[in-house]
Amino acid sequence: MHNPVKSLIESRVSTNHYDTSRHLSDDQIAELVRLATRAPSAYNFQNWKFIAVRSPDAKARLKAVSYGQQKVEDASVTFIICGTLAAHEGLPHALQPSVDAGIMEQSVFDGWVSMAKASHPGNLQLQRDEAFRSASLAAMTLMFAAQGMGLSTGPVGGFDAPGVAREFGLAATEVPVMLVTTGYPAPGNWPQKPRRPLDEVFEFA
Amino acid sequence: MHNPVKSLIESRVSTNHYDTSRHLSDDQIAELVRLATRAPSAYNFQNWKFIAVRSPDAKARLKAVSYGQQKVEDASVTFIICGTLAAHEGLPHALQPSVDAGIMEQSVFDGWVSMAKASHPGNLQLQRDEAFRSASLAAMTLMFAAQGMGLSTGPVGGFDAPGVAREFGLAATEVPVMLVTTGYPAPGNWPQKPRRPLDEVFEFA
Repeated sequence: MHNPVKSLIESRVSTNHYDTSRHLSDDQIAELVRLATRAPSAYNFQNWKFIAVRSPDAKARLKAVSYGQQKVEDASVTFIICGTLAAHEGLPHALQPSVDAGIMEQSVFDGWVSMAKASHPGNLQLQRDEAFRSASLAAMTLMFAAQGMGLSTGPVGGFDAPGVAREFGLAATEVPVMLVTTGYPAPGNWPQKPRRPLDEVFEFA
Repeated sequence: MHNPVKSLIESRVSTNHYDTSRHLSDDQIAELVRLATRAPSAYNFQNWKFIAVRSPDAKARLKAVSYGQQKVEDASVTFIICGTLAAHEGLPHALQPSVDAGIMEQSVFDGWVSMAKASHPGNLQLQRDEAFRSASLAAMTLMFAAQGMGLSTGPVGGFDAPGVAREFGLAATEVPVMLVTTGYPAPGNWPQKPRRPLDEVFEFA
């Protein structure tokens, strides 16, 4: 049986070469972020922020703090995907709509807020782990959303994080976790690279 | 125009209630992991490990180190998704198949291995960030793969990490990043919860 999700996953490639003549509209970019925010996060923290870098000036500044990677300039847009620290502080605001919508009981809301406030304050490693986890889940969702819109993406983990924070005015709580170049592909991209044998990374218990 | 990927993303729910009478086969479980490993990772590190917890004994042990969360026992299988530290040490092995397949030139291989060996050894925070990033990208891919197979999933970030490491014999380099409960849903699950307004988390640059 044809499984379209399997095809989606197997046909994703990390794209380095973009068609510099084709651009995404504001609406396409906002739709990508809207779908990315449908990713799960612990407690539904939604502890993330997305900066869509697409002006020539902003691209040049991002390229300079991304070790000169040309795809940052060639892609129609590059998303700076941040995870945010101190997620517990924003949790009541993030969860209130679930209570208002009648999805979540007040007692669950109170319990979650209380649990997050018991574990997160003062635990900077947990806060950073949570920022990386949430932002990465959202980044993967954004990459699949883009593919579903006929676009290609390239995740970038190698950049000068303090430089990105400085150039784009990030708050101290906003940690840039990943860049995702996004646009229409040009010829010359690699196919999906081979993976390690399954039995090296997988076991039953 | 109908966009099946958009539907996939919008219909995903974090599942708490499972049909305990329906089970996944070995082949289904292995296929989920195979697809999860198609996720991207920095340098194609593939610095991850998947443990499929499904025996009654193993589920009971996992539940005990997951604050007693019932879904860990009720789901047909719960994946412990680990990111691995010191990813640079495994990079030559992870990349060699790309050279052998003629996808990657030897000079690129040499450059990537050299860059990873220049930045990762001794930088324990970078290694941990990388473990969380790679494992989270793979976890999100696994959740979509499951949905494409008619299954439901529930990501779990709250567990006793040292307890999981002890119970499942993880190496010191294997960091449990997330649990993903997986199975056939029962009635009573929440719908997808509302998200924060887009303008709170998104800006153009």
